[in-house]
Amino acid sequence: MVDIEKALERIKTVVGPRGWIADPAEQEPYLVEARRLWRGATRLVIRPASTEEVAAVVRTCAEARVPIVPQGGNTGLVGGGVPPEDGRNIVLALGRMNRIRAIDPVNFTMTVEAGCILAHLHEAAAEVDRLFPLSLGAEGSCQIGGNLSTNAGGIAVLRYGNTRELTLGLEVVLPDGRIWDGLRGLRKDNTGYDLKQLFIGGEGTLGIITAATIKLFPKPREIETALLGLSRVEDVMALFARARAATGDQLTAFELIPRAALDLALVHIPGTIDPLAQPHPSYVLLEMASSGTESGLRALLERLLETALEQELIGDGVIAGSSQQAKQLWHIREAIVEAQLYSGSIKHDVSVPVSRVADFIIRATTGVTDRLPGIRPMAFGHVGDGNIHFNLTQPEGADTAAYLARWQEFNDIVHGVVRELHGSISAEHGVGRLKREEITHYKPAVEIELMRRVKRALDPANIMNPGKLVSL
Amino acid sequence: MVDIEKALERIKTVVGPRGWIADPAEQEPYLVEARRLWRGATRLVIRPASTEEVAAVVRTCAEARVPIVPQGGNTGLVGGGVPPEDGRNIVLALGRMNRIRAIDPVNFTMTVEAGCILAHLHEAAAEVDRLFPLSLGAEGSCQIGGNLSTNAGGIAVLRYGNTRELTLGLEVVLPDGRIWDGLRGLRKDNTGYDLKQLFIGGEGTLGIITAATIKLFPKPREIETALLGLSRVEDVMALFARARAATGDQLTAFELIPRAALDLALVHIPGTIDPLAQPHPSYVLLEMASSGTESGLRALLERLLETALEQELIGDGVIAGSSQQAKQLWHIREAIVEAQLYSGSIKHDVSVPVSRVADFIIRATTGVTDRLPGIRPMAFGHVGDGNIHFNLTQPEGADTAAYLARWQEFNDIVHGVVRELHGSISAEHGVGRLKREEITHYKPAVEIELMRRVKRALDPANIMNPGKLVSL
Repeated sequence: MVDIEKALERIKTVVGPRGWIADPAEQEPYLVEARRLWRGATRLVIRPASTEEVAAVVRTCAEARVPIVPQGGNTGLVGGGVPPEDGRNIVLALGRMNRIRAIDPVNFTMTVEAGCILAHLHEAAAEVDRLFPLSLGAEGSCQIGGNLSTNAGGIAVLRYGNTRELTLGLEVVLPDGRIWDGLRGLRKDNTGYDLKQLFIGGEGTLGIITAATIKLFPKPREIETALLGLSRVEDVMALFARARAATGDQLTAFELIPRAALDLALVHIPGTIDPLAQPHPSYVLLEMASSGTESGLRALLERLLETALEQELIGDGVIAGSSQQAKQLWHIREAIVEAQLYSGSIKHDVSVPVSRVADFIIRATTGVTDRLPGIRPMAFGHVGDGNIHFNLTQPEGADTAAYLARWQEFNDIVHGVVRELHGSISAEHGVGRLKREEITHYKPAVEIELMRRVKRALDPANIMNPGKLVSL
Repeated sequence: MVDIEKALERIKTVVGPRGWIADPAEQEPYLVEARRLWRGATRLVIRPASTEEVAAVVRTCAEARVPIVPQGGNTGLVGGGVPPEDGRNIVLALGRMNRIRAIDPVNFTMTVEAGCILAHLHEAAAEVDRLFPLSLGAEGSCQIGGNLSTNAGGIAVLRYGNTRELTLGLEVVLPDGRIWDGLRGLRKDNTGYDLKQLFIGGEGTLGIITAATIKLFPKPREIETALLGLSRVEDVMALFARARAATGDQLTAFELIPRAALDLALVHIPGTIDPLAQPHPSYVLLEMASSGTESGLRALLERLLETALEQELIGDGVIAGSSQQAKQLWHIREAIVEAQLYSGSIKHDVSVPVSRVADFIIRATTGVTDRLPGIRPMAFGHVGDGNIHFNLTQPEGADTAAYLARWQEFNDIVHGVVRELHGSISAEHGVGRLKREEITHYKPAVEIELMRRVKRALDPANIMNPGKLVSL
């Protein structure tokens, strides 16, 4: 066992004066979670500049048994990147590793370091006439390493998949400090266990992702956007199946917006429009895109709307006539999230099979309304993926603190419905600290045990982000 | 340790009289590999009819330390499903577990048992107006459990991905006989390590896949097929990037056909046509599909051809005017495979980044031609995925046996080029017995060690398909 102080000095030497932060005020942003649910402590924040530096730091930590908390943009919502309160750890922040190592437009790939900001990757792809489709609210500050470690979702999953599906290869520093170079840019490679899958979504508990080879796509040239009003939320997934098939599988978004959320947005968020002549209980924001020109998308969309109107799947609908109008429609989607900040909101990030979305909304709404009349369920989100952000706004005039104190009680009701419908209690945000114990109630015991076996096999000393995702 | 004879008797009782085969003649098809490269031996062939029976059989085998060789349709090309010669094992054939448990057209999923024949799944999906896109030569007899265990590829990967990308959930019998129910039909689920990824492509070495929830897609309604003649193989991937972007990412096939292979087919295979007025050194068979009607695909394709002709990426091209003509074009693709049976052929199933396909073909062709003048490289296959079946037909008039005796020598040359270009020596066929040692020369040592750790963590007694994929 190496003396810890000596180990920390060695680490400082490895990363050089720009590579470590000991000052408490400068450490602050690395210690606090985005929603301020947790505040941790650390021995040292380390900011290595290369894979070799990461490897040397990890090796030294392994020898001295110092736990490591890998951190990207620190925008996660489950406390996965925040250090524990005991302060025995180091925080290893990847932000200085922000080079794009290679772009290959013909292979439709780029190889990027973990600290690259997601929005910068969008720009880099666009410069070679390509699309990197991963897109989410935090894209201006989140890092691709964090996206990979949490298997981030976002608004383009319907067409392009989660971060996992966008990844061809990884470079990982293992818990003993060795580097695994798995940076392949191959669409087909059947030469053994697909190890990268363990690190993707592994939340830094099995190793530190330092670089990745990710997929690019043709850049969309024609985009059509529409907002449709439904009389019955029960029809939403029949409409989805119809839309998916009728548009040549070119749907890029299918977002549910409840009237109650729109009402809040109309009150609180400037620039929000009421899009249709008459109010409808539910709306769907639909987008389709093609990388071809003269793609015929508009005709496909018009025909879809006509049929859906005839069959009374929708009561009304509007197609954006310009990119300006499309922006107005997307503004509604953003405004309903922002509007929820004006009241106490108990949040759920759940998924069910796409065919059960309406069923889920109805059952969960009944469940929470029975418990607390006047509660305002805001069931919105990426329902094309079966992902519902089932947020519960407090009853009008209720005491916010008293309401929020019932968080777990409403979690139990909602997650109970999720379980009945064979869904997931964390669709896209991950486990981290927030749901580490919660998942043990919803997964088979044998699955939790397999997760522990994998953790012990790859990180026998338990120094990689201990206490997150799975407890040993 | 349980007495082995007693264990076998117990297993026979569990599966009942229809569930086991002891007669050597009846066992024969389970012992021989498709290309007759290996012939194994076994104590007993077991054909369980349910997951519970599989679990009981595995539990008994685990107690008695009897190795288990899981087997699907036994169509694999690397010996992964064939029992070892020592005959200490049982073969566990999944063919009786062939129920489709559920189809959900709105969720675009179906849940199927491991023994379902792939072609039957195509039919079941079509009945509900959906597509299950996995498609390969053996689809009339291969089983989905084998497809999953080998992460099968095939001709639709470009659009729809490998079997891995088509899988949402698994049911697995673990090496100790416990059942893991991971049959989820969710597009988004971030609740821990994605364990199913270990079993997909795990070649039965970590457990036995007994059922899966797989993705369906909208059924294509309009399909366009074209055959293009290239003057220079160097242009093939520039043409690919152009085609992918210009067709709205609706390409479903992009297959390379060399003139030499077409010449063989014109001689040997009836019904093969020479598709263009003048011969070209290379051809591309291109297919695009849309699930919409009046999709505008034909216009996109015509514009692509015009531009490619103007820019001299292609010298000539033909678009199929009817489904009959499309069939004729696909017949060429099938005929070039069949024509290779008429001469000695040394085979490679490799992949490289899509941008390096032409580079690979040129370098590998030079390498093998320098070693043996007159050798006839037939570089064909799914080059849209970077996957080349680089088969080497013997020089005209050469002695076939003497030629085939040099298999490893030519493997070394070709795989050497694959390594230089950061490719894979097994793109879609897997590792099995054939490449278990070969991969250790092409992968980092740390990766092989990680694979061993995973194997030991999940199958500490090494009873699941021992000697395949990874050696301990």
